[in-house]
Amino acid sequence: MESTKYYLGLDVGGTNMVAGVVDENHQIIAKESIPTQAGRTIEEITADMAEVSKKAVLKAGLQMEDISSWGIGMPSYVNPKTNLLVHANCFGWKNVPIYDYLKKHISLPTYIANDANCATYGEVLAGSASQYTDAIMLTLGTGVGGGIIMGKRIYSGADNMGAELGHTKLVYNGERCTCGQKGCLEAYCSSTALIRIMKEALQENKDTLIWKLCGEDENKVNGEILFEAAKQGDSLAKQIVDDYISKLAAGISTFITIFRPQVIILGGGIAHAGDLLLKPLNEKLHTCTFAAEEIGIPQVIRAELGNDAGIIGAALLEKTM
Amino acid sequence: MESTKYYLGLDVGGTNMVAGVVDENHQIIAKESIPTQAGRTIEEITADMAEVSKKAVLKAGLQMEDISSWGIGMPSYVNPKTNLLVHANCFGWKNVPIYDYLKKHISLPTYIANDANCATYGEVLAGSASQYTDAIMLTLGTGVGGGIIMGKRIYSGADNMGAELGHTKLVYNGERCTCGQKGCLEAYCSSTALIRIMKEALQENKDTLIWKLCGEDENKVNGEILFEAAKQGDSLAKQIVDDYISKLAAGISTFITIFRPQVIILGGGIAHAGDLLLKPLNEKLHTCTFAAEEIGIPQVIRAELGNDAGIIGAALLEKTM
Repeated sequence: MESTKYYLGLDVGGTNMVAGVVDENHQIIAKESIPTQAGRTIEEITADMAEVSKKAVLKAGLQMEDISSWGIGMPSYVNPKTNLLVHANCFGWKNVPIYDYLKKHISLPTYIANDANCATYGEVLAGSASQYTDAIMLTLGTGVGGGIIMGKRIYSGADNMGAELGHTKLVYNGERCTCGQKGCLEAYCSSTALIRIMKEALQENKDTLIWKLCGEDENKVNGEILFEAAKQGDSLAKQIVDDYISKLAAGISTFITIFRPQVIILGGGIAHAGDLLLKPLNEKLHTCTFAAEEIGIPQVIRAELGNDAGIIGAALLEKTM
Repeated sequence: MESTKYYLGLDVGGTNMVAGVVDENHQIIAKESIPTQAGRTIEEITADMAEVSKKAVLKAGLQMEDISSWGIGMPSYVNPKTNLLVHANCFGWKNVPIYDYLKKHISLPTYIANDANCATYGEVLAGSASQYTDAIMLTLGTGVGGGIIMGKRIYSGADNMGAELGHTKLVYNGERCTCGQKGCLEAYCSSTALIRIMKEALQENKDTLIWKLCGEDENKVNGEILFEAAKQGDSLAKQIVDDYISKLAAGISTFITIFRPQVIILGGGIAHAGDLLLKPLNEKLHTCTFAAEEIGIPQVIRAELGNDAGIIGAALLEKTM
């Protein structure tokens, strides 16, 4: 009799690392979390990565021998030719032999992938896109993360170095992005960008519900306030939302033109706007995408797993390698 | 004793169809061509596709049984789920069971792919990118065609419907493109676009070598004249070239950010400008691409096979399917 398979996933963020044990039905059965404390040495951090993962296994009432493999999502990627973890900026690491550090603590087959790719993979395995094989996800948060799944597998370009969808060009010669380049999608569609745009608009015009909702303190503006003001009919808010959605649609149209996924998934804080965002976005995509009539346009839907997506996607990495 | 393998390739354009027999070393050993006469029925055109292909085999001194497979490049693509050729605009075809028509004439294993993908594949098999496995080619002609090769295989998105690189967005809300959308790469980087830009500039200012080189007839401007004027130091021409290259670099930077190919290949009429185009383009890519320092930037090189690339790529399609 074959025993049930379990998978161990770990999502390493700049603030916390969260481990989870995932069963064959792609459900998390136990979860453990500790602060990342990013400034520490690689020895300390990898020891904690193993520690929190082992704790999750214990919490699930399992032994390490019940686990099929260990998958890790990180804000970086491993070059398959060198097996080195390439520049993880938040840790200050560059070309680190991370597998060597990890196997001192856990001897399971270990797989590492970019965290945005893991989250997308998780949504396709167990979340809002589980009935699809080809999906693209954008996470509209502080930055804009991107993940591509084709044929139920992660697609991340040559040597895993690509699929940085947030840093594709949206506006030629446009706004300066955090990455140093100009006109990136992230420079217009992240929540950071949206706050910048709202503040700029408030400089010109304070006769708007946005100003009231943020308590007349421009440092308190955010996407939630914007969409609430738009919902209540505020004209400035409606204009900012309309422009935001037009730009997001233009960015997404490029990804559709290249990949023709079956579905687009939106995650991150801005996706909480729900239908206020999704309805007009789905409409605009039909008018701004190449060969929309001939080929059709994939629907844009919301991610549904939140932070669990990254854990589930990481846990199941062995299936995409 | 195993006999040498030969492959039969056919490049079907709007004007001519050219067939070639390709040997194991990816060299064309015989070629035949006939006019396409695009307005005819599918029966007539597919009969001619077979006819010209058989003639190439005869010319090579071979029999059909010496041929391993028949590969065809067309300005369309086949959906692998339906096996139908999807909207070939220049023929007015839509969802045509083209394999059924073709097998009435030639019973070899038959493969069809988009012509731009075949040309890219040909350059990677036998042309300027033969030492690479991951390449992206842009053909800067009347339109902007694109092809992606990853791991020595054609990458064309879900159901072969993607990789339309010429219709990705370059300038948000920009120039109207032939496809009906706004701001596509093609609307700025095709030879058609370059002629439009030159004409617009001449409306404002005829005190330029461009005006002399085109015999004071704005309908005679073209890319060759532009690059010649720039080479001779004409300031308007230099400015147009500089802006053209900046926009092309921005477009390419998006493809690098997504795919991280080892090399970028440029074909089509504008690529004849050679180093006048390539040198500044390679420099600009280093300053306008995400993570250029950390990851590095692929070199941009010229295609070298011309129209033969499409025949060679088509002939070898069996190796990418």
